[in-house]
Amino acid sequence: MMVGVADTTFARVDMASQVIEILRAELPEARIVRYTVPGIKDLPVAAKKLLDMGCDAVITLGWVGAKPVDKYSYLAASLGLIIVQILEGRHVIDVTVHEDEADDPARLVEIAVDRARKHTYNLIALLKRGGEGLRSMAGTGRRQGYPDAGPLKP
Amino acid sequence: MMVGVADTTFARVDMASQVIEILRAELPEARIVRYTVPGIKDLPVAAKKLLDMGCDAVITLGWVGAKPVDKYSYLAASLGLIIVQILEGRHVIDVTVHEDEADDPARLVEIAVDRARKHTYNLIALLKRGGEGLRSMAGTGRRQGYPDAGPLKP
Amino acid sequence: MMVGVADTTFARVDMASQVIEILRAELPEARIVRYTVPGIKDLPVAAKKLLDMGCDAVITLGWVGAKPVDKYSYLAASLGLIIVQILEGRHVIDVTVHEDEADDPARLVEIAVDRARKHTYNLIALLKRGGEGLRSMAGTGRRQGYPDAGPLKP
Amino acid sequence: MMVGVADTTFARVDMASQVIEILRAELPEARIVRYTVPGIKDLPVAAKKLLDMGCDAVITLGWVGAKPVDKYSYLAASLGLIIVQILEGRHVIDVTVHEDEADDPARLVEIAVDRARKHTYNLIALLKRGGEGLRSMAGTGRRQGYPDAGPLKP
Amino acid sequence: MMVGVADTTFARVDMASQVIEILRAELPEARIVRYTVPGIKDLPVAAKKLLDMGCDAVITLGWVGAKPVDKYSYLAASLGLIIVQILEGRHVIDVTVHEDEADDPARLVEIAVDRARKHTYNLIALLKRGGEGLRSMAGTGRRQGYPDAGPLKP
Repeated sequence: MMVGVADTTFARVDMASQVIEILRAELPEARIVRYTVPGIKDLPVAAKKLLDMGCDAVITLGWVGAKPVDKYSYLAASLGLIIVQILEGRHVIDVTVHEDEADDPARLVEIAVDRARKHTYNLIALLKRGGEGLRSMAGTGRRQGYPDAGPLKP
Repeated sequence: MMVGVADTTFARVDMASQVIEILRAELPEARIVRYTVPGIKDLPVAAKKLLDMGCDAVITLGWVGAKPVDKYSYLAASLGLIIVQILEGRHVIDVTVHEDEADDPARLVEIAVDRARKHTYNLIALLKRGGEGLRSMAGTGRRQGYPDAGPLKP
Repeated sequence: MMVGVADTTFARVDMASQVIEILRAELPEARIVRYTVPGIKDLPVAAKKLLDMGCDAVITLGWVGAKPVDKYSYLAASLGLIIVQILEGRHVIDVTVHEDEADDPARLVEIAVDRARKHTYNLIALLKRGGEGLRSMAGTGRRQGYPDAGPLKP
Repeated sequence: MMVGVADTTFARVDMASQVIEILRAELPEARIVRYTVPGIKDLPVAAKKLLDMGCDAVITLGWVGAKPVDKYSYLAASLGLIIVQILEGRHVIDVTVHEDEADDPARLVEIAVDRARKHTYNLIALLKRGGEGLRSMAGTGRRQGYPDAGPLKP
Repeated sequence: MMVGVADTTFARVDMASQVIEILRAELPEARIVRYTVPGIKDLPVAAKKLLDMGCDAVITLGWVGAKPVDKYSYLAASLGLIIVQILEGRHVIDVTVHEDEADDPARLVEIAVDRARKHTYNLIALLKRGGEGLRSMAGTGRRQGYPDAGPLKP
């Protein structure tokens, strides 16, 4: 098994180390390939390159500025990552932290670490058991970077 | 016949159970494959994977947060689902609930259940009779999650 | 000749009947295929299916809600329809009515009928004479659903 | 050499005549093919058709309404034109006039004519000398429809 | 090695000269190909053409106006550049300056020069060492056109 980790120099938190630590513990047999790019708009081609290298799945670690135009960059990058997945038929789990999610830098770190770690477990579940790996959590209001919202019962 | 159901762990309502209950009753001969992903931006690749497995059509069950940036995620996911359908030439019925559609959680559950169930019947009509399956309701102001708006007569 | 007509159950006006009436009168030899889907986001795959069936061109009849998020659905659907046309090299004339174009339901009906009918004539001109079919009206401020804006002379 | 000119019946100024006049004078040997469509969302497929006919490049002449939803149509059309160019590897110079660029119709005509004419010269430079044709103007703040902004010196 | 540089006549600063100066010093053996187009929406096809000519990577130098509709052009161009990269599997580093980043023209020049120069070094690192070239800067809050934001430690 081979897993790609794409991150950026724009991000203010080294999320890749968090991700790789978990991948090494949970998937000791897997080869992990890391690819660092300048910013979020470079993540789709990084994911594409990692998939071309043979990765079974990729996790991308983006960081988005607070200005309205940064949100357009987010939209373009998000759609690019979705297109890569459609063309390749493999998962690219997209972890994104928005700089305006918290004023307090310490809280921003917490959000980034929690989101990156939880999504790493999501990725592992998908890698190990495909579309059934997250079945038990379906519709239960899971959140990454925040406390779970929880399920609402019909 | 084979039908795909893609849902998320982000959603707060287990819409897939509603969908599968109807599919089993209405299409007893069909094989149903469920694929659970973390959030809406993962739904296009889930749909792609389900179609690659041989599904004749897919229904996706998304849940969108209330923040402006969540709406960009909605836009990216929506376009991704449309691209999958164009490339595959098969239907992916997109059920999406927006967390800001109601303040009251009970009302949100009602919207989610009603929308998922009605779109399941839409999917079944398309599967059974193609573009003619919904003919009798064309231009009649059908709504999912809300009461029908009804037709306006020329 | 074969012409596709895609419409929705979401729309509150049966625009397809208007379109088909004109197509039958103006293109009596043409085969008309109608395909009804739930909403605008389903129109791109409907158009794709109609083109795959052999249609020389398609007209889609969309209806868009008044909320901001409905406009994102409009954007996604519009881009999807453009992508279908690029991939197929054939016209998909996109008739869209926005529910907030008028408060008065009667006026909304007028807009929908006028827009659908005028765009049907546009489609016919393109089918009969290609890029020259609308030449005499180029740059003359034609509107569908409203009175023409008219030309401004250099 | 073969050049495509795509315009719309929605536009209020006959920009194509301005473009064709210049093309005939500057590229007397070129074949010019004109393709008229209803509105901007039809321009990407018109450009695709013109390139399929063998055009070396295309110029499109769009006109966009003043409402927010018209700007989404602009976005969809712009992206469609970019996708056509990426798939074909040929230039489609996109001239767009926004109805809200001026209140005064005479001023709107001036903008449309100036923009269409200047972009025609841009197209000719690209056709004649490729990526070197506009070299001398690189980074010099050229504007179409307005006076040049001019260069800022480092 | 072959590197493409795409710039525009719309930009008010000759960023390409800054980029080429660094490329010549750092990659003396590389062939540099420059391609100038009118504006940002022409950059995706310029990048595509440069990659088709055999460039190993491309840097694009865009300049975006201050109006809301200019930001839609930015979004369309950004997504186009991402699509080119996905289809080609090679980097297109996207340098964009927004005219509303500073009121003072001298400051705008500073931003443009700093951003173009820093991204040229990013490109060189990616060309020389692939996904490992920027590893030491991953998650450290690097900025182009502004002082670095710096890392936040978990």
